[in-house]
Amino acid sequence: MRPGALNALCDVPGVAVGHRTIRRDAIATGVTAILPHGGDLFRDKVRAGVEVINGFGKSVGLIQVRELGTIETPLLLTNTFGVSACADRLIRRGIAANPAIGRATSTINPLVLECNDGAINDIQAFAVSGDDADAALAAARPGPVAQGALGAGTGMTAFGFKGGIGTASRRMTLDGRTFTLGVLVLANFGVSGDLVLPDGRRPSPRAPGGEERGSVIVVMGTDLPLDDRQLTRVARRGAAGLARLGAFWGNGSGDIALCFSTADRVAHDPATPFAPVMRIAEPLIDLPFRAAAEATQEAVLNALCAAPPTPGRDGAFFPSLADWLRENPIHENFS
Amino acid sequence: MRPGALNALCDVPGVAVGHRTIRRDAIATGVTAILPHGGDLFRDKVRAGVEVINGFGKSVGLIQVRELGTIETPLLLTNTFGVSACADRLIRRGIAANPAIGRATSTINPLVLECNDGAINDIQAFAVSGDDADAALAAARPGPVAQGALGAGTGMTAFGFKGGIGTASRRMTLDGRTFTLGVLVLANFGVSGDLVLPDGRRPSPRAPGGEERGSVIVVMGTDLPLDDRQLTRVARRGAAGLARLGAFWGNGSGDIALCFSTADRVAHDPATPFAPVMRIAEPLIDLPFRAAAEATQEAVLNALCAAPPTPGRDGAFFPSLADWLRENPIHENFS
Amino acid sequence: MRPGALNALCDVPGVAVGHRTIRRDAIATGVTAILPHGGDLFRDKVRAGVEVINGFGKSVGLIQVRELGTIETPLLLTNTFGVSACADRLIRRGIAANPAIGRATSTINPLVLECNDGAINDIQAFAVSGDDADAALAAARPGPVAQGALGAGTGMTAFGFKGGIGTASRRMTLDGRTFTLGVLVLANFGVSGDLVLPDGRRPSPRAPGGEERGSVIVVMGTDLPLDDRQLTRVARRGAAGLARLGAFWGNGSGDIALCFSTADRVAHDPATPFAPVMRIAEPLIDLPFRAAAEATQEAVLNALCAAPPTPGRDGAFFPSLADWLRENPIHENFS
Amino acid sequence: MRPGALNALCDVPGVAVGHRTIRRDAIATGVTAILPHGGDLFRDKVRAGVEVINGFGKSVGLIQVRELGTIETPLLLTNTFGVSACADRLIRRGIAANPAIGRATSTINPLVLECNDGAINDIQAFAVSGDDADAALAAARPGPVAQGALGAGTGMTAFGFKGGIGTASRRMTLDGRTFTLGVLVLANFGVSGDLVLPDGRRPSPRAPGGEERGSVIVVMGTDLPLDDRQLTRVARRGAAGLARLGAFWGNGSGDIALCFSTADRVAHDPATPFAPVMRIAEPLIDLPFRAAAEATQEAVLNALCAAPPTPGRDGAFFPSLADWLRENPIHENFS
Repeated sequence: MRPGALNALCDVPGVAVGHRTIRRDAIATGVTAILPHGGDLFRDKVRAGVEVINGFGKSVGLIQVRELGTIETPLLLTNTFGVSACADRLIRRGIAANPAIGRATSTINPLVLECNDGAINDIQAFAVSGDDADAALAAARPGPVAQGALGAGTGMTAFGFKGGIGTASRRMTLDGRTFTLGVLVLANFGVSGDLVLPDGRRPSPRAPGGEERGSVIVVMGTDLPLDDRQLTRVARRGAAGLARLGAFWGNGSGDIALCFSTADRVAHDPATPFAPVMRIAEPLIDLPFRAAAEATQEAVLNALCAAPPTPGRDGAFFPSLADWLRENPIHENFS
Repeated sequence: MRPGALNALCDVPGVAVGHRTIRRDAIATGVTAILPHGGDLFRDKVRAGVEVINGFGKSVGLIQVRELGTIETPLLLTNTFGVSACADRLIRRGIAANPAIGRATSTINPLVLECNDGAINDIQAFAVSGDDADAALAAARPGPVAQGALGAGTGMTAFGFKGGIGTASRRMTLDGRTFTLGVLVLANFGVSGDLVLPDGRRPSPRAPGGEERGSVIVVMGTDLPLDDRQLTRVARRGAAGLARLGAFWGNGSGDIALCFSTADRVAHDPATPFAPVMRIAEPLIDLPFRAAAEATQEAVLNALCAAPPTPGRDGAFFPSLADWLRENPIHENFS
Repeated sequence: MRPGALNALCDVPGVAVGHRTIRRDAIATGVTAILPHGGDLFRDKVRAGVEVINGFGKSVGLIQVRELGTIETPLLLTNTFGVSACADRLIRRGIAANPAIGRATSTINPLVLECNDGAINDIQAFAVSGDDADAALAAARPGPVAQGALGAGTGMTAFGFKGGIGTASRRMTLDGRTFTLGVLVLANFGVSGDLVLPDGRRPSPRAPGGEERGSVIVVMGTDLPLDDRQLTRVARRGAAGLARLGAFWGNGSGDIALCFSTADRVAHDPATPFAPVMRIAEPLIDLPFRAAAEATQEAVLNALCAAPPTPGRDGAFFPSLADWLRENPIHENFS
Repeated sequence: MRPGALNALCDVPGVAVGHRTIRRDAIATGVTAILPHGGDLFRDKVRAGVEVINGFGKSVGLIQVRELGTIETPLLLTNTFGVSACADRLIRRGIAANPAIGRATSTINPLVLECNDGAINDIQAFAVSGDDADAALAAARPGPVAQGALGAGTGMTAFGFKGGIGTASRRMTLDGRTFTLGVLVLANFGVSGDLVLPDGRRPSPRAPGGEERGSVIVVMGTDLPLDDRQLTRVARRGAAGLARLGAFWGNGSGDIALCFSTADRVAHDPATPFAPVMRIAEPLIDLPFRAAAEATQEAVLNALCAAPPTPGRDGAFFPSLADWLRENPIHENFS
């Protein structure tokens, strides 16, 4: 399948991404914001499905997404101990925009997804604040998505390499129209030595492996008109993309995939009891399935190639996959 | 909420029910067929959701209903050891109507739900055959639904009383239109002494209680335009109806609830990649929630009142709740 | 079944409960803490299962409980917008006790459960702080559990009455030993007019009903040696207790039940690869099933009877069920 | 990780496998039986967990495995339309061995897993009978497992190649003892052109791809003392093995993975209310996770290498992967 123009989540029309990077002293962390559309998400929710690939994780908001099939705040990605600050800020922003929340109408479900960046970042410093969430949201815009060691990806590692933010997309043509599925990953998973490239090579950072304490967040967006059951099925295929890289969704890894659709919005206060929506024919869902697996696999590789070599805490060192690829050209390996 | 004209599953337009009762010697069992519409269900599927309240059961077809959100055969209810014969016949009927099944197109997912009627019926006799499935299907028609000890309910027991088939329905008005949610139960659950009537009385058949080995199947239909996630949520509320009767969904009970919608059909071979469907606004779902709980509770009571007193195997005896109610008028209990 | 000595969650040996009530100006909210044992829960986790009865809720920590079957912090109950403050404090307390968290070992999964007390409390004031979480934890002790309008229950309402904290327990004898299942509820659910008493009466507060925006949290503890699958099954039976009260688990209600066992602890750093545990025979699980349904039903009624009449926001008023019962003695209703 | 002595499911002590192959005229199908131990499985159940990777399938028995965490019959694998005959025979065999079934004790839950072999076999012939189930069970024995186009695998295809039965195993050393995880697959999945070998090569049978209508069944056994939650987690890792081969768990594919443990048996009639069991420390579960992914991947490749080239129905042809590998030695591809 062919990528979109940007090969990024923002190939899906209306989707915006913003990063807030926090670096000082022993701190290397941040927040990444994803906006499914530019309007008020509480009033105009988007449909979504979520797959908990491995639930050793502390993301918040997923229970309600599963029950109702909708997202009603921007998505924030951050480190494990930054979740509360980000969730709190999403609630306060929601109230500021919709003063009826918690009074004349229901409360609001903040959606914050996380990985543990403790291999590089001093996570015990609780460096992420609500203002950082604001900054990531303020930075969000459509267009090319910066990748690597920035935003929530600043301190992440994967397969013994420096990890972080990566993105990719795939195009699909149906009924004469072009649709896109885009993926953004926060890559912080995988045991050193397990990574498999699409050509079968196994780049090893020569750092010791060990028990996995990472995680990975896979956020997908699409403009295909899928309902939340279908979106859940598509989200699950992110796990296939991770497995193709050599992951086995380790015990200590909080692996979460989520897919939203921008095709139709769900009004908080519906104007009418019934409303028409377009739906894709189920047999065609193999297209976004394939797109989800491919784009997830590629988004992780993009994250690892974009992130520079970085020293970790306690004397560890996380090289760049880009350097490994330069040092190991294919003709040397397969001659 | 008010019941439909028949207070039955068949208040939902187009739904048909048929019974095949098998009685001879030690045999007291049967098959009940439910047709969501009168057409070919494989070509024109209906949306459905299923809730496994307690999974100590042998119903077949549920895995695919959960994945795809659709039903593609009639629903057959029967005894536990009759499931294979009924499933096999549903497949063969499907092939007869659609010779491409298993060749040019996919296979077919038979949907058969069961309870263990061994307290009355000699279940080891394997008395249910494919021809009985045919007979129940041939008997299916819209209109009033016969209740009590017939069809799949012939040998069922509940709360120490004779159980069986019961039905009820509720009407809802939305946007000036009237919609119906109908329920049909195969009632074979509940420990003797646990039954609670809506007025708080606890009718006891004075038979010893004991470990539950029963089950209950709750089939709901509606003409409300719900998607499969919403239908799953509605199906779950059948469990509330059972609990109001004193059930706690015992370990040995296979308690399954399923809800289908006749509002829009899902074509096996979709004519176009995309199609419009109507969907209800989520906040209005409390209406079918309430209807599901109420109608399930009432359908079980209807089953118990319609079934006559019946001797069981091994010297047991299952009285009629109708007799208990006659013998225990309210003024005697609360004076 | 018979209640324990206190008819409270703390009948389970070792379990402690503490409340922090916050009342000032328009604020009427708080925190309730539940400690499964008096030690360090991160180092010595307890097994647990969770049932999302209806997922319109913002509780945090459930994803990991489902994956791993363990709880590793105290449980905090609070209002919806107090979740982040409580979760953040649980993490910081965990780090203070175990400095390896997020460094040499994994992160920690805070468990905070919530209801929306906005009918009485000014929830937009974000009155709950980490210090309130500390205060509730510091107040926790074994013994009798104060009920009604205190702790997290301070501002809660149910079925149009004043709601709040309630508790109950049931005893079981197995193999010559006595075991207990205790329940603590945070009752904030149910439409006005829907409440059904065990004797069939329907106390109505004469306030208008309407769409449900409440929730209910059901926390169960037991010293029975159940594994997490069994604990999940037991937790689910809390839903039966709620249904017997007239609830149908409304769309807008975040209804969560959780059950933990104190029978064996799960070491964060296991001393050996394998360890023996005792397990109950599955057919005996009907005992805790029945206990869970009964004690949940009674705990809610206890909450409603213990809470005094309370004015709400916007001129609303929430009477006490205790007053209704005094004003409606049984002989007047059933003569 | 290193394979067991046989590199087969039967490396797990006590596990037996038997095949019944049916070939005549247009019939090419069969039954494969897996016995977790040589005793009576109804009286001495084994613990198990199941993962529905993609639920477009008609396997029976899974609902109860999920609820109770146990298997109580042998596992039979067969074609989609043979499920009823096999399930019926498992019930009758269960009754013959335990006449109390359905009378003095509960009913029995037959476990039959299936794929659609209609690309080669005339599945509409309903060629599989209960006697074939008997024959597969009678043929079951420990030791080496025959692979390829036999038993349930006789008519299966995968990635455009001839598929069928494959097996592999991995050894783990814990606490000075050696444990094994074995896998047997019924491989009938994957779009032509999607297969990826571990070295990155993509063997294409040069047959047209197309919509997937296959399925894959992954049965794992182990002697590690895992509970059913842990077994479910391990089963899920079978999906990683499939994804590494290029699968994305297509819409029309019924992909089911199941893992049982022989470490402790669950008595149908427990002698005592409580019993001790050994349990593995959760962090060590990465070992069977990795084993499950690796052995599933290898078992599929073994199936494809063992199956000979076979003509399909309607003029199709399914080559052998073994032939492709001979015709495409590595030095030609990477020079």
